[in-house]
This record gives sequence, structure tokens and C-alpha cells, in this order.
Amino acid sequence: MSAVSPLAVPPDSLFGVRNLPYGVFSTADDPRRRLGVAYGDHVLDAGRAAEATGAPTDLAAVLSAPGLGPLLAAGRPAWTRVRAALTEWLTAERYRAAVEPCLVPRSRTVPHLPFDVADYVDFYASEHHASNVGRIFRPGAEPLTPNWKHLPIGYHGRAGTVVVSGTPVVRPSGQRKAPADPAPDFGPSRRLDIEAEVGFVVGTPSPLGARVALADADAHVFGVCLVNDWSARDLQAWEYVPLGPFLGKSFATSVSPWVVPMDALAHARTDPPARGAEPLPYLDDRAAEPPYGLDLALEVRLNGHLVSRPPFSTMYWTYAQMLAHMTVNGASLRTGDLYASGTVSGPAPDTRGSLIELTWNGEEPLTLPDGTTRSFLEDGDEVTISATAPSLDGTRISLGEVTGRIEPAR
Amino acid sequence: MSAVSPLAVPPDSLFGVRNLPYGVFSTADDPRRRLGVAYGDHVLDAGRAAEATGAPTDLAAVLSAPGLGPLLAAGRPAWTRVRAALTEWLTAERYRAAVEPCLVPRSRTVPHLPFDVADYVDFYASEHHASNVGRIFRPGAEPLTPNWKHLPIGYHGRAGTVVVSGTPVVRPSGQRKAPADPAPDFGPSRRLDIEAEVGFVVGTPSPLGARVALADADAHVFGVCLVNDWSARDLQAWEYVPLGPFLGKSFATSVSPWVVPMDALAHARTDPPARGAEPLPYLDDRAAEPPYGLDLALEVRLNGHLVSRPPFSTMYWTYAQMLAHMTVNGASLRTGDLYASGTVSGPAPDTRGSLIELTWNGEEPLTLPDGTTRSFLEDGDEVTISATAPSLDGTRISLGEVTGRIEPAR
Repeated sequence: MSAVSPLAVPPDSLFGVRNLPYGVFSTADDPRRRLGVAYGDHVLDAGRAAEATGAPTDLAAVLSAPGLGPLLAAGRPAWTRVRAALTEWLTAERYRAAVEPCLVPRSRTVPHLPFDVADYVDFYASEHHASNVGRIFRPGAEPLTPNWKHLPIGYHGRAGTVVVSGTPVVRPSGQRKAPADPAPDFGPSRRLDIEAEVGFVVGTPSPLGARVALADADAHVFGVCLVNDWSARDLQAWEYVPLGPFLGKSFATSVSPWVVPMDALAHARTDPPARGAEPLPYLDDRAAEPPYGLDLALEVRLNGHLVSRPPFSTMYWTYAQMLAHMTVNGASLRTGDLYASGTVSGPAPDTRGSLIELTWNGEEPLTLPDGTTRSFLEDGDEVTISATAPSLDGTRISLGEVTGRIEPAR
Repeated sequence: MSAVSPLAVPPDSLFGVRNLPYGVFSTADDPRRRLGVAYGDHVLDAGRAAEATGAPTDLAAVLSAPGLGPLLAAGRPAWTRVRAALTEWLTAERYRAAVEPCLVPRSRTVPHLPFDVADYVDFYASEHHASNVGRIFRPGAEPLTPNWKHLPIGYHGRAGTVVVSGTPVVRPSGQRKAPADPAPDFGPSRRLDIEAEVGFVVGTPSPLGARVALADADAHVFGVCLVNDWSARDLQAWEYVPLGPFLGKSFATSVSPWVVPMDALAHARTDPPARGAEPLPYLDDRAAEPPYGLDLALEVRLNGHLVSRPPFSTMYWTYAQMLAHMTVNGASLRTGDLYASGTVSGPAPDTRGSLIELTWNGEEPLTLPDGTTRSFLEDGDEVTISATAPSLDGTRISLGEVTGRIEPAR
């Protein structure tokens, strides 16, 4: 046994006390799902820690739940109190004896979906991504549609197929038709892609018929996770006119197991990029302080090989604008709503967040270190998206990672 | 007190023993949500009846739940047993004394959403509707998109804003831009519309990565309800390229309170219309016996005035094809998934299921009996969609109705 306490995590660790992301885990010898907090190389069993430290009843109740739902629903004042309590339990010497036994080595934990996804919405908020896709599919035409700079374009995805990182992704089958084909045929997707995205988790609900103003976004949004919006480009291309993506997306959407609270991202706030259009008042964030941009540095790895570094700070539309837009028609929010940013792509070729952009629709395949090339994903390929964000004093915190491996079509 | 027993409902009643639709209700003096079965002018308190009749424990458990969920999840064999038990309780003389006190006058009940909607998908399965919309928006061009006869086009909607019949619908606000306007403005929708649809309620789930074959549809689909897919045409027109409808639909979708089990629709089975394209094998229903078409006769009333009689029997794509398509990429089903047919429109002008078709994009307004005209909905307007289906011996059963009144924008 090492004599080093699992509590001895330096404050500048990626999973140190400045981060404290929430997830749900079980272990081989205890299959109960429990709320956990990533800390160093361990996971704090939050319910057990609440009991061991004699936490107030209301905090103990949300931390002893088998999922994040009750904490999400408890609202921002509770989120602040819970975070303060966790910080104290993990750092104050007087809690050491009580808390140390509540830390489980992360390698021994099995992650689960951290919350029940209510509605899932996917946006399209990167100007570079939308422009790239426009150039690929409509060469010679204006890359962005006329509405793009007036509203954050989004659509609803399938909440029931949001899965936790590590879940295998079965190659989807469906109708495929190239423009020159006389009719569609049926079979496994030949153009299976990824989309590196950031997801936002709604805690506080809102009533039907009311709007959530930009300035109220932080009262509703609990935190962020990483999202891989797997996309079958051939299925999508054939089906999406006129009602949008459906089976090209709905077979699986993977999310990272750790939800990083917005409170951990205070040092990642940054001004969004300059916009090219006057916003309507409900989307006008020019006076927002702090700003709603987030300086998250993503990395995309294909079979372990770094293929892209998408910068979230380049996103045109912010999480607050997406939320204000999503509710401006009176649509209600529910605890557990998840909305994702859309593919994060920066201006440089090696910062694009999808293979269709990185390989320019397959015309410029990627070469991997083993000498093989990729236009789209092959069976057995594993994609991992990770991210970090600036924290106090030039240190960084981690958003963890979302990973998935492609299984052959059935 | 009348001496007539509430059990004395003629078998050919619209809510007679051949129907027995399920819903959730409460009453003014007992706000608990309970599972109910519509019968004549009454609602059977199903949990209370199970207790009073000494039903087997498993049936009593699903009938005593505060929603349809446990019954939906129990699967087809349980659905058959429950229906047989209800039929016996309501018709056999030996149960009369036990069951009579469990019947509550329907006028005294408050309906609630009958089940928690998991994912909501909206299809576009009427050839007449899709052709009308194509002619209105793309005059001179081919009315149907090239994919239309190859696959049932669909998209995910917002499950969290599915509301029960009677819930007021607040006029949504959003971005409006006519083609000639230089930029969008913001304000209440000026083109608020309805879509008369039929919804299908999934009971039995399916695992991720597996497909549900056409022939297995009835093992998964529990029953049908009526759906009004309220649509803000101006918001929708500006936002929907390229990712489909979003805020133009997500403000509210109303459903009827009574879910009619597929078992009650055995006499409504009919051949779907002749199709103009060879189906891919997973959608080929030409050998299906009984066929998957359903002869449901819808009626749409605006402020009480009958404005349309959409015939569901004219739908190109059936509920079984929609289900097979929705899962062919391996997307899983969850108990409580709801998928709707899309607007039901027949070939004749007075059988169209939306105002944009009935008024041909406002060019031919409807005249109501009070002398006023409508292109789209005004504040205070009430829309009611009802339907009946053939049953045994030339009688009909009712699918009830879905109604909603427009409240002014906030």
C-alpha cells in the first residue's frame, strides 16, 4: 500500500479541487449506481461522503441519489453549496479520516450516463464548420444559408440514444444514394463520421409559455460535457431534405461521463468572436459581463493519433444565445435537457471537428501512423475527444473525454 | 338519482366495450393521478376496479399506477390480458356490484398527459399533404422531393412540450422574415397553423443496435392517439433550412387524452393506397396480413365549425413502415416513445389537415358561420380534432378528441 493519501491531489491537477466534475459510477463489487466526483485518480462516492461528514439533510439527499437528476433540479444556490461542501471535504484536514475511505480508484469504476436526458437539441453554432460544410456541398454558392447569422440553427435529436463514453457504436445501416444513382440501395453506412461538440446540461426547468433571457442562462445551465455526435453522412445526405437529419444521427450520440459545473469554468470565460450581423435584442450579448464565450481546447484522436485541436472559443453562437433562442417561442425546459453546440471547428485545417471537413469530403484522406489512410471511419476505429479549460493562475482543468469504438454493422 | 346503471352502455357506443381506451385522470376532490378507462359517459378508475374485482397482482400493479407507463412496458401478452379483464368487469353481471362504484362521470374528471413521452418523432407520411406543401412553396417544381416515395421522412420533435388536450396554447414569438424583407424582425407568429395527425404510442422497448422488422410492429405499438402539431409557418419558413423545423413546432404539441389500443382497431385495418415506387425490402408491406393501413375518419373543427374531414386511410406510409424505418439504423425504442403520422390530408380540398392547405397559403381564406374569415389562427380560436374508426358489425368507435385554444403572445 502506498502511504500517499488519495486526498493528496495538487490543486493544479486536471481533476483537482478547482474542477470537481460530477458523474455516476458503479464498481464490480457494488453494482449500485452512485453519484461520484472525479478527484485526482479517484472518484469520491458523494453519497457516502455526505454521510461520513454529517452533511445537511438536503445536500445528503441530492448526493445520495443514483443519478445527477436531483442535484440538477435543486438549482443554482444548491449547486453552490454542494460545491463548497465538496471542496471542504476534500481539502480540510478535519474531514480527512471521514473522506479518505469514500475515494474509489477511478480505474475500478464503471461510468454510467450521468443523468436521464430529457430533450436533446443539437445546434450548428460554428461559423467555420457551417462554412466548410456549405463549401463542400454547395460549391460556388454562398457557404452560409441566409438565416445563419441571425439565429443559432438547431434541431431536436434522439434523447433515447444518448450513450455514455465507452459504449460501442454499431455501424448504422440505411438508405444510401449518391446523386448519380438512379435509386437508393440499402446497406451499412460507408461514410461514418464524428462531430466533436460541447454539450450543455440544463438543471433548472422553465415553464411552458415563458422565455429564458440571455442573462438568466446561468440560473438554468448546470454544466458542460463533451459530445460525439456520430453521423452517417450518406444516410444524412439522402434523407435530410426537407425536414433535417434523422437516421443519419439517431443511432448513437456519445457523451463524456463527467459533467463539469459552470462554476469550474469561471476562468474560461472569454469574448465570443466578432459577429458579422446585428443581433436581434433577445440574442444581443454585447454587454454581457462576464462574456458567454468559453475557451475550451478540444482534441480529437483517431486510434490514439491526434488529428484535430478544435478551439471552442471560436464558436459564433454562445451557450446563452442557444438557450435564449431555444426558449424564445415559449418552449419549456426540463431538468436533464441536453443541448450541444454542433461541430466545433476552428479556422485552421487541423482544427476541424469532423472527418468530412478534415478530409474535405474524402478528397484528402488522413494518413495514420500505421500507414493506413482514412476518409471516414472503419470498423474497429476508436475516436476519443478530450478537452481542457483554463483555471486559476495559468493552470488548466480537464473535461475528461468521450470515446467510442465502431463495431461492424449487424 | 337515475336508476340506469353507468354500466348500461350499448356495445355500439363510441366509447363502448369494443373501445376501452386508456387515459390518466384526477377529480376535483381527489387530485391523485389515476389510470382510467373511458366507458360510455364515465371513466373507470382502473386501479380501484382491479382491487374491487380481486384482479391478479400483476394486473392490479399496472392498473394502479399513476400513469400508463407500467402497462405500456408490460408488453403485448399483458395488454391482451388487461383488455380481457376490463371487458369482463364491465359486462359480466357478477362484477356489477364491485365495478359500479369505480365509475366516475367523465364530466367530473380532469384529463392528464396519459404517459411520459420519451422521444417524439413527427413523420410526413401523407402524399397529398407533402404534395400540397410542395406546390405552395415550390410552384412549378416537382411537388415531392426525390426521397419522398423511398422512405418515410421524419424528424425529432420536442417531447417536453407535448401537452394534453385542453392545455392553452400561447401564440409563439420568434424570427419572421418574408422572402422580400431585408432582415428578420421579431414578434408573435402571424401564421399560426394546425396539423391534424395520428400518433402511435410505443410500449415494448427495443435494444440499441437492433432493428424492429415490419412484422414486429404490433409487438411494440400499444395504441393510437390524436395529435395537433401546432405550427408557426412564418418561424418555420425562416429557420428550417438546412436542419429542419425547430421553434416553428417546439412551442406545443397537443395529444388526445385517450390512447386507443391497437386491439380496438382490428376492424379498421385496410390496405394502404397504391404506391408509385418499389419499396426496399425493410419497408415492403405488400404481403402483410392484416394490412397496416388504418381507416380512421378525422374531423377538424375551428370554433366548433367543421372545416375538414381528413381520411387516414389515404396515408402513403403506414405506422409499421414508420417504425421499421425509425429503427433500421439501430436506434432503440423506449416505452413512451410517441411518433406521429404528419398532417393527414386526403385528395379532396375539404379533406386537408392544415390551414395552410385549406386556405392555400392564405389565398383562399375560410369563412366561418359568424361571417369572419381565417387564413391562419387568431387569438381565442379553438381547434378540435376528433376521429372515429369502424368496429364490429358496421358500428364505430371513437378516438376522442384533441382540443386547444390560442392565447395571445406574451
